[in-house]
Amino acid sequence: MKFNKKLESINTYEAGKPIELVVREFGIEPKDIVKLASNENPYGCSPKVQNAVAKIIPNMALYPDDSMTKLKSALTGKYAIENENLIIGSGSDQVIEFIMHAKADENSKILINSVTFAMYEIYAKHVGAQIIRTASQEHDLDEFYELYKKENPDIIFLCTPNNPTGDAIDAQAMMEFLEKIDKDTLVVVDCAYMEYGAYKDASKKVIPKELLNKFENVIYLGTFSKAYGLGGMRVGYGISQKNIIKELYKLRPPFNITTLSLEAASVALEDEEFVNNCIALNFDEMKRYEEFANEKKIDIIESYTNFVTLCLNETQNSTKLSDALLRQGMIVRDLSSYGMNAIRVTVGTKEQNSRFFELASALI
Amino acid sequence: MKFNKKLESINTYEAGKPIELVVREFGIEPKDIVKLASNENPYGCSPKVQNAVAKIIPNMALYPDDSMTKLKSALTGKYAIENENLIIGSGSDQVIEFIMHAKADENSKILINSVTFAMYEIYAKHVGAQIIRTASQEHDLDEFYELYKKENPDIIFLCTPNNPTGDAIDAQAMMEFLEKIDKDTLVVVDCAYMEYGAYKDASKKVIPKELLNKFENVIYLGTFSKAYGLGGMRVGYGISQKNIIKELYKLRPPFNITTLSLEAASVALEDEEFVNNCIALNFDEMKRYEEFANEKKIDIIESYTNFVTLCLNETQNSTKLSDALLRQGMIVRDLSSYGMNAIRVTVGTKEQNSRFFELASALI
Repeated sequence: MKFNKKLESINTYEAGKPIELVVREFGIEPKDIVKLASNENPYGCSPKVQNAVAKIIPNMALYPDDSMTKLKSALTGKYAIENENLIIGSGSDQVIEFIMHAKADENSKILINSVTFAMYEIYAKHVGAQIIRTASQEHDLDEFYELYKKENPDIIFLCTPNNPTGDAIDAQAMMEFLEKIDKDTLVVVDCAYMEYGAYKDASKKVIPKELLNKFENVIYLGTFSKAYGLGGMRVGYGISQKNIIKELYKLRPPFNITTLSLEAASVALEDEEFVNNCIALNFDEMKRYEEFANEKKIDIIESYTNFVTLCLNETQNSTKLSDALLRQGMIVRDLSSYGMNAIRVTVGTKEQNSRFFELASALI
Repeated sequence: MKFNKKLESINTYEAGKPIELVVREFGIEPKDIVKLASNENPYGCSPKVQNAVAKIIPNMALYPDDSMTKLKSALTGKYAIENENLIIGSGSDQVIEFIMHAKADENSKILINSVTFAMYEIYAKHVGAQIIRTASQEHDLDEFYELYKKENPDIIFLCTPNNPTGDAIDAQAMMEFLEKIDKDTLVVVDCAYMEYGAYKDASKKVIPKELLNKFENVIYLGTFSKAYGLGGMRVGYGISQKNIIKELYKLRPPFNITTLSLEAASVALEDEEFVNNCIALNFDEMKRYEEFANEKKIDIIESYTNFVTLCLNETQNSTKLSDALLRQGMIVRDLSSYGMNAIRVTVGTKEQNSRFFELASALI
């Protein structure tokens, strides 16, 4: 059977066994496995959220409220925006998918940072668009501008704080960059980790309402998967001008968020105290990673997120290191596929981090 | 800002207020609202499913198992197929979306029944493909074959039992039809309501494994949204040849099913007794709709699903009738947008159905 040509350049994602199962094959008990690989909130989600979801379990039989009244009301209140400025996706991933299908095709160019969130490229391939990458590891806005002038991309992705490096763009510099971009180029400002970045350094804080006030070609992305502790529930969102949201809405499948996910995300916004406590704990624990890197004389990229990127020396190999950790039940992310001799480690609970230092100390 | 041309022909889905809120504006208490519009399982989902989901609520923070080991194992066991024959979607809707993006583009034709599930056309528009419809209200396989020869479609959708009419295709006749279709035309056999159809009449039963054994160009769709009582959790699936599933997998976003949804669907398959009891109750209650139609001298389409389609006389108007019911808190589906002077009513619980008869009796 013949399929669309663009599929030829997409690699099938081979869903392997869950990594926990792999680790168990090394004879490790589930209780001894520590996963610091997916940047989940190690403190889970708010007990209020858990209670609220438990109460509506019988509603699993009922289709979700497709107008998402409760969640939209909570988000528009938080960001001082209108309903028509907002679209909810099954993770901010799905909003990226809508953007790609609405704005790009096989004749399009997409400008992204050299090292950044892998899904931009994957969704670009879905529509056959070409990816242009900067050379710098951190977002260099001058380089972005040069490539913008040269390549005339349809979409630019800025990821701040950036995944998988953890660094963040200066918000003022970003606003100045955005002013230089023509109004038909869509700029996506992916702020999946912004709750962390804004807490650590106000100069990194991007405010959706300010983007709306100043630019007609920018979309802000946020998620409940990180600071809000709902990685398993698949809820993210995009905030932009009404005409842009209207086009994206055309591609939204009905009922794209589950009944329980809508409730979980809505109630999560009512317990910002929980989220702020988690973020404070995150940066307290992050200091220990900085000390560890200092002791071991390896580089750590200053992080505005809930993970750290440890850049190894020439004598070390990130693949070998992450594999050795895996065999002892410690799951971290090897960044060799990003062209970096580095590992990305989610900042976990005090206990999880201690276990990491204990195991990694013997290996680095 | 300019967007892709194909978006011009897509109408924005205007998410209105939830219909329950509209009804409340008529001064009706939530407890007095009866919704028989979305073909949910009126008995909810299995208590075993509810208990299993309640136990893993803290796991909302963790990304879903993207290999879906537990759910895939349950489904491959049920259908005697292999892992590589199966893809899980966020509702069978999402599998339809994968199919459309993998196989169709702006040069494609999609052949569907005159009255059928609305999402086939909506997803066709997402890729700019042309929809060809039969003339007959029920699936007429001779007409499908004539149009197939004339139009050479890329994809054919057969919906059995069909939504929103409730009738079903004879399985043997469908197998004979499939034999006549060339191997590069993908035939989608959408069996969202098959649990009901197969229970009522074995001659309507479509078995995925038999399709796999005989045809290299057919995909079977199933869902947990109907008989399994999980409409709110968004889990459906496609079963086909490995080469087809492999192509569809290229378009699957990671983590497309939530952590709680994976658990709910897996455990639902362990309690087939619950599902069978619900289906038996459904057809017991359906007899009352047949009696009602007989009394009122209106046509009822013989249904192999959990809903009935009542075709009104010339003196009646389905829009006015459904509106009058709505004002009394009874929500049903007006089929005027499908070109039918008919209403579709989900077969509810004994009490819900009695309420429908009470209100409808005064209006028909």
